[in-house]
Amino acid sequence: MLLTLLTDFGTGSPYVAAMKGVMLSIHPAAVIVDLTHDVPPQDIRYGALVLEDVAERFPRGTLHVAVVDPGVGTSRALVYAEIGDHRYLAPDNGLLSRLALRQPPTRIIRLTESRWWLPKVSATFHGRDILAPVAAHLSLGVDPAALGVPHKELVMLAWPQPRIAAGQIQGHVLWIDRFGNLITNITVEVLAAAGVGPNLVATCCEKTTLRHVRSYGQADAGDFITVIGSSDRLDLAVVDGSAAGRLRARIGDRVTITW
Amino acid sequence: MLLTLLTDFGTGSPYVAAMKGVMLSIHPAAVIVDLTHDVPPQDIRYGALVLEDVAERFPRGTLHVAVVDPGVGTSRALVYAEIGDHRYLAPDNGLLSRLALRQPPTRIIRLTESRWWLPKVSATFHGRDILAPVAAHLSLGVDPAALGVPHKELVMLAWPQPRIAAGQIQGHVLWIDRFGNLITNITVEVLAAAGVGPNLVATCCEKTTLRHVRSYGQADAGDFITVIGSSDRLDLAVVDGSAAGRLRARIGDRVTITW
Amino acid sequence: MLLTLLTDFGTGSPYVAAMKGVMLSIHPAAVIVDLTHDVPPQDIRYGALVLEDVAERFPRGTLHVAVVDPGVGTSRALVYAEIGDHRYLAPDNGLLSRLALRQPPTRIIRLTESRWWLPKVSATFHGRDILAPVAAHLSLGVDPAALGVPHKELVMLAWPQPRIAAGQIQGHVLWIDRFGNLITNITVEVLAAAGVGPNLVATCCEKTTLRHVRSYGQADAGDFITVIGSSDRLDLAVVDGSAAGRLRARIGDRVTITW
Repeated sequence: MLLTLLTDFGTGSPYVAAMKGVMLSIHPAAVIVDLTHDVPPQDIRYGALVLEDVAERFPRGTLHVAVVDPGVGTSRALVYAEIGDHRYLAPDNGLLSRLALRQPPTRIIRLTESRWWLPKVSATFHGRDILAPVAAHLSLGVDPAALGVPHKELVMLAWPQPRIAAGQIQGHVLWIDRFGNLITNITVEVLAAAGVGPNLVATCCEKTTLRHVRSYGQADAGDFITVIGSSDRLDLAVVDGSAAGRLRARIGDRVTITW
Repeated sequence: MLLTLLTDFGTGSPYVAAMKGVMLSIHPAAVIVDLTHDVPPQDIRYGALVLEDVAERFPRGTLHVAVVDPGVGTSRALVYAEIGDHRYLAPDNGLLSRLALRQPPTRIIRLTESRWWLPKVSATFHGRDILAPVAAHLSLGVDPAALGVPHKELVMLAWPQPRIAAGQIQGHVLWIDRFGNLITNITVEVLAAAGVGPNLVATCCEKTTLRHVRSYGQADAGDFITVIGSSDRLDLAVVDGSAAGRLRARIGDRVTITW
Repeated sequence: MLLTLLTDFGTGSPYVAAMKGVMLSIHPAAVIVDLTHDVPPQDIRYGALVLEDVAERFPRGTLHVAVVDPGVGTSRALVYAEIGDHRYLAPDNGLLSRLALRQPPTRIIRLTESRWWLPKVSATFHGRDILAPVAAHLSLGVDPAALGVPHKELVMLAWPQPRIAAGQIQGHVLWIDRFGNLITNITVEVLAAAGVGPNLVATCCEKTTLRHVRSYGQADAGDFITVIGSSDRLDLAVVDGSAAGRLRARIGDRVTITW
């Protein structure tokens, strides 16, 4: 069984290596792939979006271990969850709520059986002391039922949906990638539901796009455009440049679509 | 067969994880090693230099997947190429042109057979939707001939060569590493051809080196020196410091050698 | 046998990939895990602390390859060392001195047998040309005795210990993590030896903590607190914020404990 890791520790953090060391000590042949460790510190929403975008690209049955855990050491639960064909270990703080929005979990177990944990559990690093050893034991074939007790439902965060009204769609910037592209919460489904045509125009930070294209190559360098991105969302981009830089845009900024 | 990945997505980008997820879904036992994901955005030349420097360190037969692809979604070709004992999947935009300069490719195939691709191909992320699944299928033993049609030749970028004249070598800074060392396009072969002796002096950004050494330890902290670096190129360095910082040097800056 | 890599090359550096390529060329089935590549350039102390904190989390017998090597190309030794249940390859410059402080090495060999090295050894990159191939050969079962000659003892760096006097503990900031937490050299053992109670107060950069908690969740957002961190050290933290940012603290800053 494949294991993946998503954290907010920062790529190259020794904390990531500590988790891998614990996993490999229990299951030396475990195969561990990094999803990302560059979730902004304690940004549960960002982690939830990455999980939604990437987790299901992995083989069925993959176990995704996610640690964005500002509540570590409090009474927040740590859970094992099955959602679709994939499995997850995470704090129950909303980190799985994008995935659970799309498809209800078929099984949730609260981790309470400490025999699967490290003998000594710190108060500040449950990723290493609880989730990593539990993940390794699961990958060795431990029955999830042995991990703890059934857990009724996951904490769900509110995710503002785009609004369609009066010939407009109001959405916002969900995240910004390394190229400075603004990924919005306006999906192709929303565009279709609103009957938006190919002549759509987006406005963000008081700047308006020049045209809507199928790929970057259909516009000229420097053009401010919209394009359907690789997650089936409307992206705002500057060809061969950075939309985030030009607009000084940030996550959460409002995006208005007209057509 | 080993797979490597080189992209400009940024280390820790979820886009990298998406490519790995696709590969592992098709070939769960695939072994994937990161070459680097820190190619500056859309900097084909930088990617080409890293491939030249590192790819052949890997075992013969390794398949290197390279994605620096500003033309994604246009008519630029995606190709499979065999160069020396190694194999490559990349957009045909010059990314393989340093390797191909040293040794002509023995086989080039343009990827046209969509049965090896993801069922749904986005217009903006062919790394995930075409190159990743093709790589996984190749690693499972698919015959390269089945991937598409023969492709005549690779796009070659112009790479300015150092000039030797009037007792001088004129070269430039090829890249700058994390230590602030300036790696030049002046190779040991060029130095030998020009008959340069051990008393060479380099000038860059109006600053002149103090001496040429065999290793950093032969100079004192703070000395501005030249040394033959690990890629058999002339490097300009400040011992225990940063040459790039002291000179405010940038990639492409002119370097003059006298002796 | 598992191999890990720790360097100061920077995550995503092609130099890291070059080392992996060399290892995999010699032992294609080698399993290599990154400890971290974000050791600040040439910061031997930082590397030594990470090794102490993380190396022993890995399975017994793991071979850790560490490259923070400002003296590359000088007469400094490269060594193979056995410390506890783990094995190490590193320059003998203090990089292993935190580990060796806790437990004396049971075996040290200076690498002198060049038949295990790359045929051509550069003067500036012994990580790639000596340590990587030696690691790969060890993982294939080569007897460590064949690597070179016995080496008497490791270079030890001085590590200032916290001082307990007059109802105070004087320590300092050992490192700062991504969350801005200040990890000190004051361990739980030191606190116990001094008889410090749960009402301890820490002062750093002229700012004093509000309270000592068992976990972040026991304090309010913005509180400046102390907590026993995941390495059994006293950490100074701002809940949901950055202590390093608020205090403008740096590694080495003095920390005073009263109670």
